[in-house]
This record gives sequence, structure tokens and C-alpha cells, in this order.
Amino acid sequence: MPRLILLRHGESVWNRDNLFTGWTDVDLAQAGVAETKRAAALLRAHDIRFDHCFTSVLKRAIHTAWIVLDEMNLAWLPVSRSWRLNERHYGALQGRNKDQMRREVGDEQVHKWRRSYRARPPALEVTDERYPGHDPRYALIPRDQLPLTESLEDTVARVIPYWQERVEPLLMAGRTALVAAHGTSLRGVVKYLDKISDDEIETLEIPTGKPLVYELDAGLRPVRSYYIDDTDEHSALPEGRRARSR
Amino acid sequence: MPRLILLRHGESVWNRDNLFTGWTDVDLAQAGVAETKRAAALLRAHDIRFDHCFTSVLKRAIHTAWIVLDEMNLAWLPVSRSWRLNERHYGALQGRNKDQMRREVGDEQVHKWRRSYRARPPALEVTDERYPGHDPRYALIPRDQLPLTESLEDTVARVIPYWQERVEPLLMAGRTALVAAHGTSLRGVVKYLDKISDDEIETLEIPTGKPLVYELDAGLRPVRSYYIDDTDEHSALPEGRRARSR
Repeated sequence: MPRLILLRHGESVWNRDNLFTGWTDVDLAQAGVAETKRAAALLRAHDIRFDHCFTSVLKRAIHTAWIVLDEMNLAWLPVSRSWRLNERHYGALQGRNKDQMRREVGDEQVHKWRRSYRARPPALEVTDERYPGHDPRYALIPRDQLPLTESLEDTVARVIPYWQERVEPLLMAGRTALVAAHGTSLRGVVKYLDKISDDEIETLEIPTGKPLVYELDAGLRPVRSYYIDDTDEHSALPEGRRARSR
Repeated sequence: MPRLILLRHGESVWNRDNLFTGWTDVDLAQAGVAETKRAAALLRAHDIRFDHCFTSVLKRAIHTAWIVLDEMNLAWLPVSRSWRLNERHYGALQGRNKDQMRREVGDEQVHKWRRSYRARPPALEVTDERYPGHDPRYALIPRDQLPLTESLEDTVARVIPYWQERVEPLLMAGRTALVAAHGTSLRGVVKYLDKISDDEIETLEIPTGKPLVYELDAGLRPVRSYYIDDTDEHSALPEGRRARSR
């Protein structure tokens, strides 16, 4: 039975400092490292194995993968990185304080930027030093694919082609993947897997540091899904609650 | 100009404890971590860049790659792992103390095992818990390719096919590779690149933690090669000494 584990990275230094992050390459905070170690311990305790890692090109997700691999003595597993698993690009909001933005434009606008399926934050200019085209890690990506800002919809649109091309063939071959990524890119994956509507996805939140396991049928349709966490030791059993909010 | 950087991992806990290691998956010692950080600082200081990492499936080499990537803010680079870049398999000597072995079989025999091109240490039995066939990281490798022991010649014979298949095409495409690996697998690479004879390779030693840079022509023949180290700040200049011992 194909199986999949999604893991949202723990607290980053900019989460901690309440800044919009997006593609800014900030590291995990101490608390985020600790969350990740707990996640690895839970995977170990529930004997959840995997044989391939996918992650983004942002260090908070890569380090999440590395910590899990190290804690499970699996550093030898293949790790595939892709910009397509990056967090949503937050445009010109990147680096801005969330409370400050609320004061400037109001709660409602900030809520819309954060939650609405189609709302895009203000775009970067290509001359802005935050534009991904200035970063060597994106040098091989066609310029028309590099975002200046992204909605959740835009994020889904660039995550799913990678999913179909790289992750699905591996799952079809019976292998188990760990995907260490970001709140929004993982919401995109969950939307796709669980066929969640554009409206419903707006309220779906994936917690940090809690492995979300999907068991799939031969057609890669979810049979069941569940979080593994400290407070619900039996969630990894068949009667465990489903991850979906529906 | 295609370029290549070879980096032998620093001191491991079994190097420190004077044990034969081979494929035993021991981690870097503290001193080895420090050596690797210095190596990364040297690469940074000499502005030596690369865009792909190759390493073995042993954590002392993988962690070497990770430390260099982190120190250079390059964790997003692709990393390819292969058992073919592993250290030489040391057969039944793995886990044995080197001085103890010298007392048991004599200096000359131990020297021969360590240095001769064709000498193989005593082989493992497949029932031995140290046999790689018991380790999930080697599960997909045909049993007739998994070693019970290896000479330097055997090591070269399994390193080079990987080199030709995976590393050379990337170099031909003008990319620069960092290969973080082991004393013996890297001796195999240097033997191949520099066309060193079977006799001469016995005396070639690659120091730990010192990046060895190769500049290659379009046919991947070495144009020059040099170590970058603290004590010879100008070795990265054209007039620097060549790495080869010939």
C-alpha cells in the first residue's frame, strides 16, 4: 500500500519574530528544531518508515528533513529538493511584520492575503533584491515561472506538476515518501489528494511538527489519513481521526 | 572549464579510537566536524563554488557534505548519494583495533592489508551481522555486487562506473561537483583522473579536511590540481603545487 508522510517545518526565526517569510531563506528557530526532533521520535515510536525524502530549496524545510533523517538513522536516504515545494511567495510582504501590516492596511486585508484562495499580496518588482531571479538557486528556472507574488491558487499550480512528475511515480512503485515542506505547499498537496474545494481549503490549517500520514490505494486515492502526535497516541491506529477538516 | 572538488571526511569516532571502519556507519568525531568547517571556510575564502554534491551512503561523508553546504549557505544544492562512493570494505577487520591486529598478525600483514593495491582483508561470512546484505540501505543492490571484503583494486572497480555514469556527464555539462567521500574511494578517483599506476597509488595519501581541486579540460583530462589548506595560502594559485605525488 503506497504511503506518504507530510511534515510541515517547525517554528522558524521569522515565525518567531512574526514576520511574513515566503521564500526568504530563514532557518529553524530552536523551538522548531525541538519540534522536528519530537516528530522524528513519533515516527520512530510508530514504526513509520519511508525510503525517499522530498523537500523545498529553503533551509528551514531542508533542515527539517535532515533532522528527521539523522534522528531515524536514515541520512543515507535519497533527498530530492525542488523550488516547487517552496512556501508560497509572499511578494512585497516578505520581511514585513504581520502586526504592523494589520495596522497599516487593516485586519481584514491581512486576513484575506493570508487565507483567501485567490488573493495575492502586493507583487515584488524584478529590481527588488528579494526577487528570486537574483538568487543562484533559481538560476535554471525560466523567468516566466518565477513568482513576484503568489496566491494559494498559484502555489497549488506550481506544486502539483512536480507532485505528478516526481512523487507519484515513486508512490506507484510502492515506495514511501516523506515530504518535509511548508504550510502552504503542503496545503496544496492535501487539497489535491483529498479533492478539497477552493472554498474549503481556506480554512484548512496543517500544524507544524506533526507528521500527517496518508495511506493510498493503488490509484493513489487516500484510503485514510491521520496525524501522529503526542496527545493522541492512538491516532496511528485504523480508528484514528482523519486529517481532513471536512 | 569543468572543475571538481574532492573532500575526504575528517576524523570519525572510529578513526579516533584506532579501529578499522570500512562500511561501518560511524559518525564524525568533534575534531572531524571542526576540520570540515575549516574546509568550508577555505572554499569560501578562495571563492570556490560548486553546484552539485556527491557523497557515499555513510553518515561521516554525508555529514561532511551537509556541514560544507550549511557553512556555504548552499543547503539547497542537489546531493547524490551512492554506495559506490563508500569507503573500502574492510571485511572481517571492521571493528577491530589496528594495534591489536598488528600484535596478532604482525606489522607487515597489516601494512599489506592497508596499502597493497590487491590485498584483501579476511572476508566476512554472509551470516555475519556486519554483512552489508543485512542493511536496508543496500537492499536494492544485487547480491553479487555487495562486498564481503575489498582490496583497493576492488574499490576502484566499483567507484569508476558510478563516476563515468553520474559525475562525468555533469562535468561535461560545465557544472562543478563537490565529492565528499572517503580516503580509499577518493584514491580511486585520483588514480583514474591522473592515470596513476597500480604501484604508485599504494603510496598516495589524501589528507582529511583539505579540499583537493581539479581543473579539467573539455575531455575531462586534468589541467591542474591543488590542495587548498591553511598552511599554504597560495596553493590555489596557478603556481601552486600539484596534488599528485608523481
